[in-house]
Amino acid sequence: MNFTPGPSELYFTVPDHLRRGIRDGVASLSHRSTPFERIFREATEGLRELLGLPHGFHIAFTASATETWERSIQSLVGETSYHLVNGAFSKRFFEISQQLGKKATALTVPEGSGFEAVNLPPGQELFALTHNETSTGVSLTPAILGAARKQHPESLVIVDAVSSLPYVDLDYSAIDSVFFSVQKGFGLPAGLGVWIYNERCVEKAHQLQSRGKSIGTYHSLITLHSFARKYQTPETPNVLAIFLLGQVVRDFLRRGIQVIRKETEYKAAVLYGVMDRREDISPLVTSPEHRSNTVITISCPGCLNELKAHLESQGLQPGDGYGAGKTTQLRFANFPAHSKETYEMLADAVEQFKV
Amino acid sequence: MNFTPGPSELYFTVPDHLRRGIRDGVASLSHRSTPFERIFREATEGLRELLGLPHGFHIAFTASATETWERSIQSLVGETSYHLVNGAFSKRFFEISQQLGKKATALTVPEGSGFEAVNLPPGQELFALTHNETSTGVSLTPAILGAARKQHPESLVIVDAVSSLPYVDLDYSAIDSVFFSVQKGFGLPAGLGVWIYNERCVEKAHQLQSRGKSIGTYHSLITLHSFARKYQTPETPNVLAIFLLGQVVRDFLRRGIQVIRKETEYKAAVLYGVMDRREDISPLVTSPEHRSNTVITISCPGCLNELKAHLESQGLQPGDGYGAGKTTQLRFANFPAHSKETYEMLADAVEQFKV
Repeated sequence: MNFTPGPSELYFTVPDHLRRGIRDGVASLSHRSTPFERIFREATEGLRELLGLPHGFHIAFTASATETWERSIQSLVGETSYHLVNGAFSKRFFEISQQLGKKATALTVPEGSGFEAVNLPPGQELFALTHNETSTGVSLTPAILGAARKQHPESLVIVDAVSSLPYVDLDYSAIDSVFFSVQKGFGLPAGLGVWIYNERCVEKAHQLQSRGKSIGTYHSLITLHSFARKYQTPETPNVLAIFLLGQVVRDFLRRGIQVIRKETEYKAAVLYGVMDRREDISPLVTSPEHRSNTVITISCPGCLNELKAHLESQGLQPGDGYGAGKTTQLRFANFPAHSKETYEMLADAVEQFKV
Repeated sequence: MNFTPGPSELYFTVPDHLRRGIRDGVASLSHRSTPFERIFREATEGLRELLGLPHGFHIAFTASATETWERSIQSLVGETSYHLVNGAFSKRFFEISQQLGKKATALTVPEGSGFEAVNLPPGQELFALTHNETSTGVSLTPAILGAARKQHPESLVIVDAVSSLPYVDLDYSAIDSVFFSVQKGFGLPAGLGVWIYNERCVEKAHQLQSRGKSIGTYHSLITLHSFARKYQTPETPNVLAIFLLGQVVRDFLRRGIQVIRKETEYKAAVLYGVMDRREDISPLVTSPEHRSNTVITISCPGCLNELKAHLESQGLQPGDGYGAGKTTQLRFANFPAHSKETYEMLADAVEQFKV
């Protein structure tokens, strides 16, 4: 069992869906055909139901969350963006805004830390929040996720939920856009990004364009949206991935999003619980309210290689720590693809580990 | 058998490669792992051999040929690009340069026409040539492909070979970059673009960047190239597609590129031959030297629906004409996935068709 936080373990139904898709000719479908529109529609309407998206939110496809970082800044920011940065991925989102020539500002706290009450500055067109910092396993609290809308209702709010959807139950009245990629919580092969946005985002892109700003070409939000409304994409997309997403979303709907959420919390509690009982192994994130339930980082400075070898000997493949964390940390994805039984086995293995 | 020119019929080995890839965990591989680097290396070194790329040419991956249109203009053009336009796809490449705020110029001939001797203007940073205009089935002659280098050796030359590789045997001394997407001649599921470029392209991107031009972010040529040199990608890519590309390239190498080229020419000759013998069905492209061997367009203004029904009744699925051509034309992909026997059957069916 593979616990790396992405690309992670495939959801168990994926190989069967893939076989059926190939057999039924999904990989040779024209992206301008009615069968493709049905596939697009099934995936997006399923997601809408699974995530409880309110009316006025739309869904388009990009190639990756990395692409969505770039496209969202291009289409939503004329001059200013403001980023909460607490790790490698929130930092890259911030840097992409800088690279695109925007006046990007970062409120930075150390890696492994969360944000306490924030006082956000006025005059920002976009607040960029990374709900789950995959590099360290820190989540933003609902209070922080809601702070931008409360303090500056005129600004747009975008949330990177790459490694926390479908688990996180977002308050969509406090945000305008959220995005993820399918190889994490949805247990699919990499190669597809999902970008959710509301009407305010589309209006903003139109405003920027009418002011003569360059918002991109085939993947500007305006172009993506104009095709998405017809259940199409501007370019030939990863058709097979959109098909697989629709199938897995249907599986998740059958299982029930509440069941998935409760199981995720149970599995996280089991692993964090073991660490509470040990002195030598602890969660990287010291404050429980900032700990992620979907990416769990273990800090074990003196015993990393031994712990890793111990887990691998039982068929449990942890993810390495990110960047400098590689030598002191292990990360464990806790996605719907990871069963309760597997997590109990993992927790037992950590509990039984002897330095 | 599906003859639509993309996404087209899968190459016959793809389902087996896909099964093996899933079984071996390719879809869950980290794109920073050694096994991924091996997959990247196998695909790119195989392509290098298959296409006979000279030293100094490099290979990077994008999400689609559409993306490569945009990224190549961003990274290779400060002000001026010059486009040979003879159909919908060469026109979109031209329009993307305009949308990016470049001074783009088009030399336009009517759809279905090729280019005779061209007199290209000086002072252009990039000449953009569409080797095979997929919308109509017109190919550029070797003389036209070589004209830009001959007339203006200081300019860069980029070739869109989306629907003609691996068939077309390009003269790499006359061009600096070429790109394609995998769902056409390589018979793979859509969702991956391949961008081939030489050192002059990398230098140009560095020049633009040092002059303060925005060349993009994670998929600028500089960033793509810096990762490609390590057999990596900037973002989590479509790992499964890169794996499949490597496998199919190996299959093509076993079959031999000369065999593939000869078979392609044989199959094209068989279908064009039938049309020569009929009065009522003719190739859209009147001049034989401009006719594509990989996308063959039939014009049958009075008998389109009947011909289509006749072919479909024999299990032969033609592609519709593109745009306005939908009501008078049919298109037939002639890719390595289409066997000689299938093409003979197709030609017989066209020959036996009675209005």
